[in-house]
Amino acid sequence: MASDDRDEAEILAANEAFYAAFAAGDYLAMEGLWAEDLPVSCIHPGWPPVRGREKVMQTWKGILAKPPRPPISAMEATATKAGDAWLVTCFEAIGELYLSASNLFVREGGLWRLVHHQSGESAQAPKIMQNQSSKAIH
Amino acid sequence: MASDDRDEAEILAANEAFYAAFAAGDYLAMEGLWAEDLPVSCIHPGWPPVRGREKVMQTWKGILAKPPRPPISAMEATATKAGDAWLVTCFEAIGELYLSASNLFVREGGLWRLVHHQSGESAQAPKIMQNQSSKAIH
Repeated sequence: MASDDRDEAEILAANEAFYAAFAAGDYLAMEGLWAEDLPVSCIHPGWPPVRGREKVMQTWKGILAKPPRPPISAMEATATKAGDAWLVTCFEAIGELYLSASNLFVREGGLWRLVHHQSGESAQAPKIMQNQSSKAIH
Repeated sequence: MASDDRDEAEILAANEAFYAAFAAGDYLAMEGLWAEDLPVSCIHPGWPPVRGREKVMQTWKGILAKPPRPPISAMEATATKAGDAWLVTCFEAIGELYLSASNLFVREGGLWRLVHHQSGESAQAPKIMQNQSSKAIH
Protein backbone atom coordinates (compact mmCIF):
# COMPACT_ATOMS: atom_id res chain seq x y z
CA MET A 1 0.00 0.00 0.00
CA ALA A 2 1.46 3.39 -0.96
CA SER A 3 2.42 5.66 1.93
CA ASP A 4 -0.41 8.15 1.23
CA ASP A 5 -2.98 5.35 1.09
CA ARG A 6 -1.75 3.99 4.39
CA ASP A 7 -1.84 7.45 5.95
CA GLU A 8 -5.35 8.02 4.60
CA ALA A 9 -6.57 4.75 6.12
CA GLU A 10 -4.98 5.65 9.45
CA ILE A 11 -6.52 9.14 9.39
CA LEU A 12 -9.99 7.80 8.67
CA ALA A 13 -9.55 5.29 11.50
CA ALA A 14 -8.47 8.13 13.84
CA ASN A 15 -11.54 10.09 12.74
CA GLU A 16 -13.75 7.09 13.55
CA ALA A 17 -12.03 6.79 16.95
CA PHE A 18 -12.84 10.46 17.59
CA TYR A 19 -16.56 9.91 16.95
CA ALA A 20 -16.54 6.63 18.92
CA ALA A 21 -15.09 8.48 21.94
CA PHE A 22 -17.60 11.32 21.39
CA ALA A 23 -20.58 8.93 21.14
CA ALA A 24 -19.47 6.93 24.18
CA GLY A 25 -18.78 10.06 26.25
CA ASP A 26 -15.31 8.59 26.84
CA TYR A 27 -13.22 11.53 28.00
CA LEU A 28 -10.00 9.55 28.47
CA ALA A 29 -10.17 8.20 24.92
CA MET A 30 -10.93 11.72 23.65
CA GLU A 31 -7.98 13.16 25.58
CA GLY A 32 -5.67 10.56 24.05
CA LEU A 33 -6.76 11.54 20.53
CA TRP A 34 -5.67 15.18 20.85
CA ALA A 35 -2.09 16.35 20.30
CA GLU A 36 -0.16 16.96 23.49
CA ASP A 37 2.72 19.11 22.32
CA LEU A 38 1.36 20.78 19.19
CA PRO A 39 -1.00 23.76 19.55
CA VAL A 40 -4.66 22.70 19.46
CA SER A 41 -7.93 24.56 18.97
CA CYS A 42 -11.62 23.75 18.71
CA ILE A 43 -14.78 25.48 17.49
CA HIS A 44 -17.91 23.73 18.75
CA PRO A 45 -21.27 24.55 17.12
CA GLY A 46 -22.24 28.10 18.06
CA TRP A 47 -19.02 28.61 20.05
CA PRO A 48 -16.18 31.07 19.74
CA PRO A 49 -12.73 29.60 18.94
CA VAL A 50 -11.23 27.81 21.96
CA ARG A 51 -7.43 27.63 21.91
CA GLY A 52 -4.88 25.64 23.92
CA ARG A 53 -5.00 22.03 25.09
CA GLU A 54 -6.16 22.76 28.62
CA LYS A 55 -9.13 24.90 27.57
CA VAL A 56 -10.05 22.61 24.67
CA MET A 57 -10.03 19.53 26.89
CA GLN A 58 -12.15 21.40 29.47
CA THR A 59 -14.81 21.93 26.79
CA TRP A 60 -14.74 18.21 25.96
CA LYS A 61 -15.05 17.29 29.62
CA GLY A 62 -18.27 19.30 29.77
CA ILE A 63 -19.64 18.01 26.47
CA LEU A 64 -18.76 14.35 27.12
CA ALA A 65 -20.36 14.40 30.56
CA LYS A 66 -23.65 14.38 28.63
CA PRO A 67 -22.93 13.23 25.06
CA PRO A 68 -25.59 13.85 22.39
CA ARG A 69 -28.48 11.40 22.16
CA PRO A 70 -29.04 9.63 19.83
CA PRO A 71 -25.28 8.96 19.62
CA ILE A 72 -23.24 11.05 17.19
CA SER A 73 -21.66 9.35 14.18
CA ALA A 74 -19.64 10.46 11.14
CA MET A 75 -20.90 10.15 7.57
CA GLU A 76 -19.17 10.68 4.23
CA ALA A 77 -15.79 11.26 5.88
CA THR A 78 -13.19 12.36 3.32
CA ALA A 79 -9.49 12.75 4.10
CA THR A 80 -7.19 15.04 2.11
CA LYS A 81 -3.53 15.92 2.57
CA ALA A 82 -2.66 19.45 3.61
CA GLY A 83 1.13 19.46 3.58
CA ASP A 84 2.04 16.78 6.10
CA ALA A 85 -1.18 17.39 8.03
CA TRP A 86 -4.41 15.69 6.98
CA LEU A 87 -7.86 17.23 6.97
CA VAL A 88 -11.05 15.20 7.32
CA THR A 89 -14.33 16.80 6.30
CA CYS A 90 -17.49 14.90 7.16
CA PHE A 91 -21.09 15.10 8.23
CA GLU A 92 -21.95 14.43 11.84
CA ALA A 93 -25.30 12.74 12.35
CA ILE A 94 -27.19 13.02 15.64
CA GLY A 95 -30.43 11.27 14.79
CA GLU A 96 -31.92 13.44 12.05
CA LEU A 97 -29.78 16.46 12.91
CA TYR A 98 -26.79 16.89 10.62
CA LEU A 99 -23.68 18.97 11.16
CA SER A 100 -20.66 19.61 8.94
CA ALA A 101 -17.24 19.17 10.49
CA SER A 102 -13.54 19.75 9.85
CA ASN A 103 -11.02 17.61 11.74
CA LEU A 104 -7.32 18.34 11.34
CA PHE A 105 -4.75 15.66 12.19
CA VAL A 106 -0.98 15.87 12.54
CA ARG A 107 1.40 13.02 13.34
CA GLU A 108 2.76 13.35 16.88
CA GLY A 109 4.75 10.63 18.65
CA GLY A 110 4.01 8.14 15.87
CA LEU A 111 0.24 8.65 16.11
CA TRP A 112 -2.15 10.80 14.12
CA ARG A 113 -3.60 13.24 16.59
CA LEU A 114 -6.21 15.95 16.40
CA VAL A 115 -4.99 19.53 16.43
CA HIS A 116 -8.31 21.15 15.44
CA HIS A 117 -12.02 20.42 15.20
CA GLN A 118 -14.83 22.66 13.99
CA SER A 119 -18.45 21.66 13.69
CA GLY A 120 -21.56 23.58 12.69
CA GLU A 121 -25.12 22.69 11.82
CA SER A 122 -25.83 21.79 8.19
CA ALA A 123 -29.17 22.68 6.64
CA GLN A 124 -28.59 19.86 4.17
CA ALA A 125 -28.50 16.13 4.93
CA PRO A 126 -25.83 13.81 3.48
CA LYS A 127 -26.67 12.64 -0.05
CA ILE A 128 -27.24 9.06 1.05
CA MET A 129 -29.94 10.21 3.51
CA GLN A 130 -31.59 12.42 0.89
CA ASN A 131 -31.79 9.37 -1.38
CA GLN A 132 -33.22 7.23 1.40
CA SER A 133 -35.88 9.75 2.28
CA SER A 134 -36.79 10.23 -1.38
CA LYS A 135 -37.10 6.42 -1.66
CA ALA A 136 -39.33 6.44 1.41
CA ILE A 137 -41.63 9.03 -0.12
CA HIS A 138 -42.02 7.52 -3.59
CA MET B 1 13.14 37.10 12.02
CA ALA B 2 12.97 33.35 12.67
CA SER B 3 11.43 31.25 9.91
CA ASP B 4 8.27 30.43 11.92
CA ASP B 5 7.73 34.10 12.77
CA ARG B 6 8.07 35.04 9.11
CA ASP B 7 5.65 32.27 8.11
CA GLU B 8 3.18 33.39 10.79
CA ALA B 9 3.29 36.99 9.53
CA GLU B 10 2.74 35.79 5.96
CA ILE B 11 -0.17 33.55 7.01
CA LEU B 12 -1.89 36.37 8.90
CA ALA B 13 -1.42 38.61 5.84
CA ALA B 14 -2.92 35.88 3.61
CA ASN B 15 -5.84 35.62 6.06
CA GLU B 16 -6.36 39.40 5.85
CA ALA B 17 -6.24 39.17 2.05
CA PHE B 18 -8.94 36.49 2.19
CA TYR B 19 -11.29 38.75 4.18
CA ALA B 20 -10.42 41.78 2.03
CA ALA B 21 -11.43 39.81 -1.09
CA PHE B 22 -14.55 38.55 0.71
CA ALA B 23 -15.55 42.06 1.85
CA ALA B 24 -14.91 43.56 -1.58
CA GLY B 25 -16.78 40.78 -3.40
CA ASP B 26 -13.60 40.37 -5.47
CA TYR B 27 -13.93 36.95 -7.04
CA LEU B 28 -10.65 37.08 -8.96
CA ALA B 29 -8.68 37.94 -5.82
CA MET B 30 -10.52 35.14 -3.96
CA GLU B 31 -9.75 32.65 -6.72
CA GLY B 32 -6.06 33.56 -6.53
CA LEU B 33 -5.98 32.87 -2.80
CA TRP B 34 -7.07 29.24 -3.10
CA ALA B 35 -4.67 26.39 -3.88
CA GLU B 36 -4.78 25.25 -7.49
CA ASP B 37 -3.16 21.83 -7.34
CA LEU B 38 -3.81 20.73 -3.76
CA PRO B 39 -7.25 19.38 -2.81
CA VAL B 40 -9.51 22.11 -1.40
CA SER B 41 -12.76 22.10 0.56
CA CYS B 42 -15.10 24.59 2.17
CA ILE B 43 -17.91 24.54 4.74
CA HIS B 44 -19.94 27.75 4.63
CA PRO B 45 -22.30 28.54 7.56
CA GLY B 46 -25.19 26.07 7.46
CA TRP B 47 -23.75 24.26 4.44
CA PRO B 48 -22.67 20.69 3.87
CA PRO B 49 -18.95 20.14 3.07
CA VAL B 50 -18.10 21.28 -0.48
CA ARG B 51 -15.06 19.53 -1.98
CA GLY B 52 -12.93 20.19 -5.04
CA ARG B 53 -11.68 23.49 -6.47
CA GLU B 54 -14.33 23.84 -9.16
CA LYS B 55 -17.25 23.35 -6.76
CA VAL B 56 -15.67 25.46 -4.02
CA MET B 57 -15.02 28.35 -6.40
CA GLN B 58 -18.60 28.09 -7.68
CA THR B 59 -19.85 28.66 -4.13
CA TRP B 60 -17.62 31.72 -3.82
CA LYS B 61 -18.84 33.08 -7.14
CA GLY B 62 -22.38 32.97 -5.76
CA ILE B 63 -21.49 34.40 -2.36
CA LEU B 64 -19.25 37.18 -3.70
CA ALA B 65 -21.87 38.30 -6.21
CA LYS B 66 -23.62 39.73 -3.14
CA PRO B 67 -21.09 39.97 -0.32
CA PRO B 68 -22.36 40.47 3.26
CA ARG B 69 -23.28 44.03 4.33
CA PRO B 70 -21.91 45.54 6.50
CA PRO B 71 -18.61 44.21 5.11
CA ILE B 72 -17.10 41.14 6.74
CA SER B 73 -13.84 41.47 8.66
CA ALA B 74 -11.64 39.19 10.75
CA MET B 75 -11.04 39.68 14.47
CA GLU B 76 -8.63 37.98 16.92
CA ALA B 77 -6.97 35.98 14.13
CA THR B 78 -4.50 33.46 15.55
CA ALA B 79 -2.17 31.35 13.41
CA THR B 80 -0.75 28.01 14.57
CA LYS B 81 1.45 25.49 12.78
CA ALA B 82 -0.06 22.13 11.89
CA GLY B 83 2.85 20.20 10.42
CA ASP B 84 3.91 22.33 7.46
CA ALA B 85 0.37 23.65 7.06
CA TRP B 86 -0.86 26.61 9.10
CA LEU B 87 -4.28 27.02 10.66
CA VAL B 88 -5.86 30.38 11.37
CA THR B 89 -8.78 30.55 13.77
CA CYS B 90 -10.61 33.83 14.04
CA PHE B 91 -13.91 35.59 14.51
CA GLU B 92 -15.67 36.99 11.48
CA ALA B 93 -17.62 40.17 12.16
CA ILE B 94 -20.52 41.24 9.96
CA GLY B 95 -21.83 44.25 11.81
CA GLU B 96 -22.96 42.81 15.14
CA LEU B 97 -23.16 39.25 13.83
CA TYR B 98 -20.14 37.15 14.79
CA LEU B 99 -19.00 33.88 13.30
CA SER B 100 -16.11 31.57 14.20
CA ALA B 101 -13.87 30.42 11.38
CA SER B 102 -11.05 28.01 10.56
CA ASN B 103 -8.80 28.79 7.61
CA LEU B 104 -6.16 26.28 6.57
CA PHE B 105 -3.18 27.39 4.49
CA VAL B 106 -0.50 25.38 2.68
CA ARG B 107 2.43 26.72 0.69
CA GLU B 108 1.92 26.15 -3.02
CA GLY B 109 4.11 27.68 -5.72
CA GLY B 110 5.88 29.87 -3.17
CA LEU B 111 2.62 31.37 -1.84
CA TRP B 112 0.49 30.48 1.17
CA ARG B 113 -2.82 29.39 -0.25
CA LEU B 114 -6.11 28.35 1.27
CA VAL B 115 -6.97 24.66 1.15
CA HIS B 116 -9.94 24.80 3.55
CA HIS B 117 -12.34 27.27 5.15
CA GLN B 118 -15.15 26.61 7.63
CA SER B 119 -17.31 29.24 9.23
CA GLY B 120 -20.28 29.03 11.57
CA GLU B 121 -22.24 31.46 13.68
CA SER B 122 -20.90 32.18 17.18
CA ALA B 123 -23.30 32.90 20.03
CA GLN B 124 -20.46 34.78 21.72
CA ALA B 125 -18.82 38.01 20.58
CA PRO B 126 -15.04 38.51 20.59
CA LYS B 127 -13.71 39.53 24.00
CA ILE B 128 -12.81 43.02 22.82
CA MET B 129 -16.46 43.64 21.80
CA GLN B 130 -17.77 42.23 25.09
CA ASN B 131 -15.50 44.67 26.92
CA GLN B 132 -16.73 47.53 24.76
CA SER B 133 -20.37 46.70 25.32
CA SER B 134 -19.79 46.21 29.04
CA LYS B 135 -18.13 49.65 29.08
CA ALA B 136 -21.16 51.04 27.28
CA ILE B 137 -23.54 49.60 29.87
CA HIS B 138 -21.74 50.63 33.06
